[in-house]
Amino acid sequence: MLVVKKFGGTSVANAERIMNVAKRCIEDYQKGNDVVVVLSAMGKYTDELIEKAKEVNPKPPKREMDMLFTIGEQMSVALMAMAMDKLGVRAISLNAFQVAMHTTSAYGNARLKRIDSERIRHELDDRKIVIVTGFQGVNKYDDYTTLGRGGSDTTAVALAAALHADACEIYTDVNGVYTADPRLVPKARKLDAITYDEMLDLATLGAGVLHNRSVEMAKKYGVRLVVRSSLNNSEGTVVKEDVKVERMLISGVALDREADRISVIGLRDEPGVAFKLFDALAKKNINVDVILQSIGRDGTKDISFTVADTNADEAFQVLQDNKARLAFKDIKVKKEVAKLSIVGAGMMSNPGVAAKMFECLYNAGININMISTSEIRVTVLIDEDEGERAINAVHDAFGLDE
Amino acid sequence: MLVVKKFGGTSVANAERIMNVAKRCIEDYQKGNDVVVVLSAMGKYTDELIEKAKEVNPKPPKREMDMLFTIGEQMSVALMAMAMDKLGVRAISLNAFQVAMHTTSAYGNARLKRIDSERIRHELDDRKIVIVTGFQGVNKYDDYTTLGRGGSDTTAVALAAALHADACEIYTDVNGVYTADPRLVPKARKLDAITYDEMLDLATLGAGVLHNRSVEMAKKYGVRLVVRSSLNNSEGTVVKEDVKVERMLISGVALDREADRISVIGLRDEPGVAFKLFDALAKKNINVDVILQSIGRDGTKDISFTVADTNADEAFQVLQDNKARLAFKDIKVKKEVAKLSIVGAGMMSNPGVAAKMFECLYNAGININMISTSEIRVTVLIDEDEGERAINAVHDAFGLDE
Repeated sequence: MLVVKKFGGTSVANAERIMNVAKRCIEDYQKGNDVVVVLSAMGKYTDELIEKAKEVNPKPPKREMDMLFTIGEQMSVALMAMAMDKLGVRAISLNAFQVAMHTTSAYGNARLKRIDSERIRHELDDRKIVIVTGFQGVNKYDDYTTLGRGGSDTTAVALAAALHADACEIYTDVNGVYTADPRLVPKARKLDAITYDEMLDLATLGAGVLHNRSVEMAKKYGVRLVVRSSLNNSEGTVVKEDVKVERMLISGVALDREADRISVIGLRDEPGVAFKLFDALAKKNINVDVILQSIGRDGTKDISFTVADTNADEAFQVLQDNKARLAFKDIKVKKEVAKLSIVGAGMMSNPGVAAKMFECLYNAGININMISTSEIRVTVLIDEDEGERAINAVHDAFGLDE
Repeated sequence: MLVVKKFGGTSVANAERIMNVAKRCIEDYQKGNDVVVVLSAMGKYTDELIEKAKEVNPKPPKREMDMLFTIGEQMSVALMAMAMDKLGVRAISLNAFQVAMHTTSAYGNARLKRIDSERIRHELDDRKIVIVTGFQGVNKYDDYTTLGRGGSDTTAVALAAALHADACEIYTDVNGVYTADPRLVPKARKLDAITYDEMLDLATLGAGVLHNRSVEMAKKYGVRLVVRSSLNNSEGTVVKEDVKVERMLISGVALDREADRISVIGLRDEPGVAFKLFDALAKKNINVDVILQSIGRDGTKDISFTVADTNADEAFQVLQDNKARLAFKDIKVKKEVAKLSIVGAGMMSNPGVAAKMFECLYNAGININMISTSEIRVTVLIDEDEGERAINAVHDAFGLDE
């Protein structure tokens, strides 16, 4: 069996933790498995590198930032290989040049294109544990690139796909994927299995232990993903195409408090208005989420939407800059909102799910601001201070703790 | 004009010094020159990496040590490129993979074999300052290697040779090469020029600001070396094949206090004795320097030689282990000795030089233990506590301060 194991920065933050991860990987290796390990930079090391860069240049070129960032993972993998050697096991560390991890050319936010598995295969055949730098790649100019947020997860999944691995294990500080965030919902229950689509919706909704790019890639190549704890030996949650167990209606509830609502009031009620508005935002790379357009009245209409709170100020500015062209009366930004979502593949064949969620919130006296749905998801916008009460009520209503 | 500039770890130890080096390189670039910069790891960073390694494995594999070490120079070059960008000049950092710096396979002590100059040429043609990681290479297994002591000097000279550079400037904390170590000889004078052979002898004798591997390579490929100060704009010392200025008899005096003398007493006076003795030492990689063999008397002879003080204990042990085969009576180790050498290409055509040195030491009442000579060098072994007095006396006698 061939297993790819990915450990994040906190798991390799110091010598003691590195030894623990090494031992854990060796257990698997000694069962006769081929083991590939993907690592992130140690603890806060990436932040230290950013500090160093800012000291010489507050706006460093992205190409050179990636050149600097990539040393973080190289440090982790070299130290891990030393740790395994100390424990008497043959291991070898490889960076993006050595693996030939080809990416697009965008520095700081590259996408993986192709991986040459030859070197890794060779080392595995030689019965070594292979330790690969996560997060980094090499572009067509032969320069280092980095993969952006969640990049090491993506590296692990891509390697698992390229090597046709039997599983890709993502180690985290929780036991797996839960029906809701256990810090918010005490009755939250760990799921044994979940589909890629459900995981994608949960990841996008801010409940994710996995970055959605890695889940998308796992889905595309049929990689069996396992989310496990680095602290204990529990089974974790398997993410795969078909979840054969008897399906509940929904798999999880997610609360995203990092959303702001922007309302554009008094737009002309004519064709092309929505296009112009969202095109202006898209050109500035501002992602827009739940959208609600009012029915026209007196020749005007209103459009409301949510953005991540980190983008709210810029979105406001973009709209003000385009006021003449968009011809609206006013913009209102509401920061104290939260998105509550239910996700589940079982929803597709059960039309009453959305209604059940609305009823539950009505019974709890919680007002719904906006609604958005997809095939396997229902999202409502509510007041932020009611978020925690709402997620527990919905979790109970769907019997997720059972 | 194409210039390769090499700066050591202290020159890039912090953000301020990095900015200073950047400015210095930019001055040259703005004169219209093509500039390639070779850097070592920042200050004590290599020591920090060794510390990190020892925490997980006191005897880390050399292959993984090199994987860890190479991040030091990569950090320096990325930060330097950012500094130059801050100063408004286009610059690009390159590591050993990007330059294709091919070496032999020996981890920790590899030799450069071949450099692909294509990428560097391309970036220079694009009017960028090119910043290259010193000390590191890539072997035939596609693994990182490091070049051992003085490695960054060697990288700089090799790049200058591959690019047919007009000069290779080695920046240090002194103004150039002196007639003697200025800390020992107050009257020591900076030389404007020196030949490769003289520089090699001075480097080997412990007075060197340059590692001899880099000087050997410069000689082989005819690279014009310049030793300059990173602290001021003085001219430095040029190292080249022919020094056209009117030659003095000798160029410099060097004192090496890190030598121990070993005397093997009562060997049989028969053929093959010296061979067996030095062969036993060579098999343990112990370098032997000045050798003196007494004239046989009563069927026995004595052999004395010097070794670096770090090798003295091991040399003693090797000889003891071979006592039966070598059949000697006794071994004596004297640690309080120093090697005093005069070096100069002018010596070849002036037979009285050695005699003048001996006369000067006699006048100063300093006893000579052993003598060794080459075409351009005379070395004597003296008592260590007389070393400083001896070097000043010889420096005066040859009028090196004039």
